[in-house]
Amino acid sequence: MTKPLRIGVAGLGSVGAALVRLLQRRRADLRARTGRDITIVGVSARSRRERGLDLGGARFYDDPAALAASSEIDLFVELIGGADGAAYDAARAALSRGVPLVTANKAMLAAHGLELGRLAESHGAPLAFEAAVAGGIPIIKTLREGLAGNAVRRVSGILNGTCNYILSRMETEGLPFEACLADAQRLGYAEADPTFDIGGFDTAHKLAILASLAFGAKIDVGAISIEGIQSITLADLAAADELGYRIKLLGVAERSEKGIEQRVHPTMVAKAAPLAQTMGVHNAITIDGDAIGALTLVGPGAGGDATASAVAADICDIARGDVAPAFGRPIDALEEAERVPMQRHEGGYYVRLAVVERPGSVATISTRMAEQRISIEAIMQKGKAKGVTANEVVPVVLLTHATTETAIREALALAVADGAVRETPQVIRIERD
Amino acid sequence: MTKPLRIGVAGLGSVGAALVRLLQRRRADLRARTGRDITIVGVSARSRRERGLDLGGARFYDDPAALAASSEIDLFVELIGGADGAAYDAARAALSRGVPLVTANKAMLAAHGLELGRLAESHGAPLAFEAAVAGGIPIIKTLREGLAGNAVRRVSGILNGTCNYILSRMETEGLPFEACLADAQRLGYAEADPTFDIGGFDTAHKLAILASLAFGAKIDVGAISIEGIQSITLADLAAADELGYRIKLLGVAERSEKGIEQRVHPTMVAKAAPLAQTMGVHNAITIDGDAIGALTLVGPGAGGDATASAVAADICDIARGDVAPAFGRPIDALEEAERVPMQRHEGGYYVRLAVVERPGSVATISTRMAEQRISIEAIMQKGKAKGVTANEVVPVVLLTHATTETAIREALALAVADGAVRETPQVIRIERD
Repeated sequence: MTKPLRIGVAGLGSVGAALVRLLQRRRADLRARTGRDITIVGVSARSRRERGLDLGGARFYDDPAALAASSEIDLFVELIGGADGAAYDAARAALSRGVPLVTANKAMLAAHGLELGRLAESHGAPLAFEAAVAGGIPIIKTLREGLAGNAVRRVSGILNGTCNYILSRMETEGLPFEACLADAQRLGYAEADPTFDIGGFDTAHKLAILASLAFGAKIDVGAISIEGIQSITLADLAAADELGYRIKLLGVAERSEKGIEQRVHPTMVAKAAPLAQTMGVHNAITIDGDAIGALTLVGPGAGGDATASAVAADICDIARGDVAPAFGRPIDALEEAERVPMQRHEGGYYVRLAVVERPGSVATISTRMAEQRISIEAIMQKGKAKGVTANEVVPVVLLTHATTETAIREALALAVADGAVRETPQVIRIERD
Repeated sequence: MTKPLRIGVAGLGSVGAALVRLLQRRRADLRARTGRDITIVGVSARSRRERGLDLGGARFYDDPAALAASSEIDLFVELIGGADGAAYDAARAALSRGVPLVTANKAMLAAHGLELGRLAESHGAPLAFEAAVAGGIPIIKTLREGLAGNAVRRVSGILNGTCNYILSRMETEGLPFEACLADAQRLGYAEADPTFDIGGFDTAHKLAILASLAFGAKIDVGAISIEGIQSITLADLAAADELGYRIKLLGVAERSEKGIEQRVHPTMVAKAAPLAQTMGVHNAITIDGDAIGALTLVGPGAGGDATASAVAADICDIARGDVAPAFGRPIDALEEAERVPMQRHEGGYYVRLAVVERPGSVATISTRMAEQRISIEAIMQKGKAKGVTANEVVPVVLLTHATTETAIREALALAVADGAVRETPQVIRIERD
């Protein structure tokens, strides 16, 4: 048997604690799988408080970077979080000493992934981050290895369980956004400041990592157009249901001759699609590749045990000497892809309008659409309450065939300027195959 | 750059041809991923007929074993098929010379997987078979590596696209089994002799491989209880729909203190479960692990391109020196698990009975159930046509709470013997969480 793999773990929150327990519980099986004992020899955390964990003889480090730089460890696990600061310092300390790094830190990878990848390469140290995207779902390995023979055309996914929980409950129980968000906070799914989740930023970090792996391109989080779910109303969910869709917050990255388009926004997904059927806190990712067609993975996107499962998989790979490049190819082989901005996005649109109830309103809207060569697939006017008098508004929902973001925005702005539409129109992109 | 990886491909059917094209199309990307050129230097097929493939300077071998034993190749791809004969001879020829083997041959692995694994180990040659189960879906890698930190409790899957196509069309279009089978044959989904698919044997081969990887146990295809879909009627599908289920042919392997239970049979799956939502020729597998919870993969389970995607992934792993043991652990570490026979299966049951229309029939059935301590969850008596006279039969559907296979079979046999039930009862197991 090869000598033991000595691990340092920085961060003993829910994931760190679950990892400690997992490595103990699965010790014999992990030894059988990797041919070595995997032992935690050092830990670091913000405090030394009792956590009910059996840390054996592991030495406690107040400074995670000191643990990362210690000659006692063969592998460093970073579970601190945050793009910069302690996590980033410790990550660099490990890699620059040639120590393999396993991290769950999506924010750090989105911001510094390329630099860390380069550091890993130049020091011959593996860098692995299965746990950084979609919790326990092995999506990194799937893109990096399982689909290595494919030219990937699109990656689309539900990457934030908090948003999916909120949208699922709004839809199934008819509860308003605020009530569902409050419940998510009470259940520990959402932070006290939920902006990072519901604003789509967490999804964007994860999407940037997936796009890099999928397309062999440099991480480019700045290229992502980001919209959150705050504007989604029960009226939208009801209309979606009637039209055969569900509304999901998706991260979508697409490759075309134009370049790479990356976007995070609420999306109309046909009910039959696996992504539409993913409810609650689960995550799901669909990958479209030229050889495989469509592959979907569905599972827990967060939680201590599920995320520790992903960390453990990375540790096993390194323990048995697997040497896949962090982003599937050497950093220098990653492409600097052309950004396709959101204005050039092409697709179908769902539009909900507060139409002024007077003769000619709908004709005006139709004309503005026609001027932009937008073809309307469906129009739905409902809930026109009795007693609506002239110049009150009625809700109208439109679905368009494929058009561009620029065209739809222009048509709607003009319809508003014409006085045919009051309030800002609700615009939700439709994801089709 | 490391020296090129020279490949021999035996079998130029739809998968072999797709692989040849994939390796050409993705040449540059595969080089970036693995650091080497991947070149086909030898091929073997039943005939030398023109296939419209650019085989470059590859040498043609009439005998696949001669190709496998050639010193010109660094890796042998077996796409011949069949448990024995040419495929098996060639596989052994490669491994016993220390040449890595990539195979899509589930029948061979189910029959000889352990022996081939041992041969691979003793000669230090990788053995990889991602393409053997569920086509393009990277389920082997997921079990072997992605979920390495988990104690897997259950693997359940739709592993045969032909059966799922037939059941999906029966359900959605109300067409009888024979018509759907004929269409499947016309579309090339089913063989002229469809027994291997619809009888559940193909699913069993795949299940045996998955169970070995999931539980770290020796392949034991003889332990599998196998039922096909031939007995499923439109009446069953309609009753399932009404009760909130879909009927799927599942392969299920479960680990408990008793041992390992492996079974293939038509199954009632709750509509909300990802497996129930998998329609048409797609495959899907759900894995229940102690750390991750439930993970589901959905994708194409067959087809030349999708299967070639899986073969290419294995080739890439080997090209870059990945060394995972074929079954996740050394062969000698694989457990000889206790078989849990079908009679000891515990679960809920769907039962459709032709009940003799006379006073006391239902009471007799209820009594026989009660004697076996079977608790009835739901009972549905429908379609009692007008004009039914004494001693005609009416269809009755029962759902039971968890019981054992022995108990339900005994209760039904006695009810038939009592004269309360005519014809053989239809019994379908319910899969619950």
